[in-house]
Amino acid sequence: MLIPVTDPDDPRLADFRDLKRADRRPDRPGGQGLVIAEGTVVVRRMLASAYPVRGMLGVARRFEELADGLVDRPELPCFVASAEVMAEVVGFHLNRGVLATADRALFPPAAELLARARTVAVLEGVGDHENLGSIFRNAAALRVDAVLLAPGCADPLYRRSVRVSMGNVLAVPFAPLPGPVGAGLELVRAHGFRVVAMTPRAEAVPLRRADLRGRVAVLLGSEGPGLTDEALAASDAWVRIPMSGTVDSLNVATAGAIAFASVDPGD
Amino acid sequence: MLIPVTDPDDPRLADFRDLKRADRRPDRPGGQGLVIAEGTVVVRRMLASAYPVRGMLGVARRFEELADGLVDRPELPCFVASAEVMAEVVGFHLNRGVLATADRALFPPAAELLARARTVAVLEGVGDHENLGSIFRNAAALRVDAVLLAPGCADPLYRRSVRVSMGNVLAVPFAPLPGPVGAGLELVRAHGFRVVAMTPRAEAVPLRRADLRGRVAVLLGSEGPGLTDEALAASDAWVRIPMSGTVDSLNVATAGAIAFASVDPGD
Repeated sequence: MLIPVTDPDDPRLADFRDLKRADRRPDRPGGQGLVIAEGTVVVRRMLASAYPVRGMLGVARRFEELADGLVDRPELPCFVASAEVMAEVVGFHLNRGVLATADRALFPPAAELLARARTVAVLEGVGDHENLGSIFRNAAALRVDAVLLAPGCADPLYRRSVRVSMGNVLAVPFAPLPGPVGAGLELVRAHGFRVVAMTPRAEAVPLRRADLRGRVAVLLGSEGPGLTDEALAASDAWVRIPMSGTVDSLNVATAGAIAFASVDPGD
Repeated sequence: MLIPVTDPDDPRLADFRDLKRADRRPDRPGGQGLVIAEGTVVVRRMLASAYPVRGMLGVARRFEELADGLVDRPELPCFVASAEVMAEVVGFHLNRGVLATADRALFPPAAELLARARTVAVLEGVGDHENLGSIFRNAAALRVDAVLLAPGCADPLYRRSVRVSMGNVLAVPFAPLPGPVGAGLELVRAHGFRVVAMTPRAEAVPLRRADLRGRVAVLLGSEGPGLTDEALAASDAWVRIPMSGTVDSLNVATAGAIAFASVDPGD
């Protein structure tokens, strides 16, 4: 349903207004934020996802590009505007030219995701939205079936995470891992997973010599302080990527990708 | 040599003026650009590098943090300014609070780098400055001794690459690989390297089954079109990272990191 709009104050554009405003953020308490997809690649992923899409705003050319993904959605309001009107509504110039908004969809709880997964990632304290987005992108590419969020993680549905993930936060199921991290990892183990903590500690086994066959849960911590002692104590194995000595040597998403690529689920 | 400055038009600050101006870019023909380091981490790497540092501009607190790296550089002009004066000089607000500039240093030619390296990366058509920076960061962490630039690559010394690399473009030696890519890869092979092309092609060997022992040159192409036929034809092996089907599945720097981590130089 293509609806031309020319007035930036059109009340039907409320979903898309002032996207940088704090109360738009789905990750903040009290935030009324919707899930926002930017650009054709991410919008396509949103249209293909379980998220209930509410509407779209874009320039005419982008809707032409997306036409095949919209044929079976005649009810979806698609507001067509000039780039200038879009910029005024959104609050900044958006060079991707198209947006879609959706309500949050709740994935099944951790136990249910664990029951049907072969490989999972467990994140502790990953508070950076870009790193989180990159982890989901890598998880999707490298066949990680679900991501579980132990305490301290940011919300994967924040706009920047959605964008950096290329929309894969909408494709890879995720759920909070309930309770303190030790109890959470017990739940993971109870589902037949070996919890493999990625850590630079010298006592850890070098990746090349690690056994990563079968049902593996790759446990990743934040870039600065790393995994907590509680998380390390509740792991089955410690694995390190051999690295030269510098502190900031690998991004957590890159370390995660190296680990994901080393897992052999044997299916 | 700490020199307080309060006038944004001070001619001694010419090195730091209007950093976004196109003719500042070292990667553009005619660009008069200097190599620019932003933030204490990257500035430290520049101070420790072979690059002839020309001067620094920063807020007082950052010079305190960097004091130990400056004790044996009494001749280096360090301009101390307020954040506001800095922003006016540079042309935008710089939240890292300190800059250093250096002239370009020329690393030895490709043949010389190859003669003393165990593992190298060869890049073809990597034109994105952020990807290039990330590749250098990963190369430094994962013990790649040198990076060789086949045709089509961006300049690693552009400001954004320097920043994304965390300064590692100043630490990992690089050189252009002369001639068309086929001849360039012949030079690599002549130095005893096996050229391993990373490619998603179905005929490629999955990474887990690839032999990456000894002197390996990891060949990476651009994210969109990938390696050219000429580069693929001049490689000793094609290796793929098993992935799910999506087009944009892995960033080239991430794919490179996975490959680098799999190389076993055997030293």
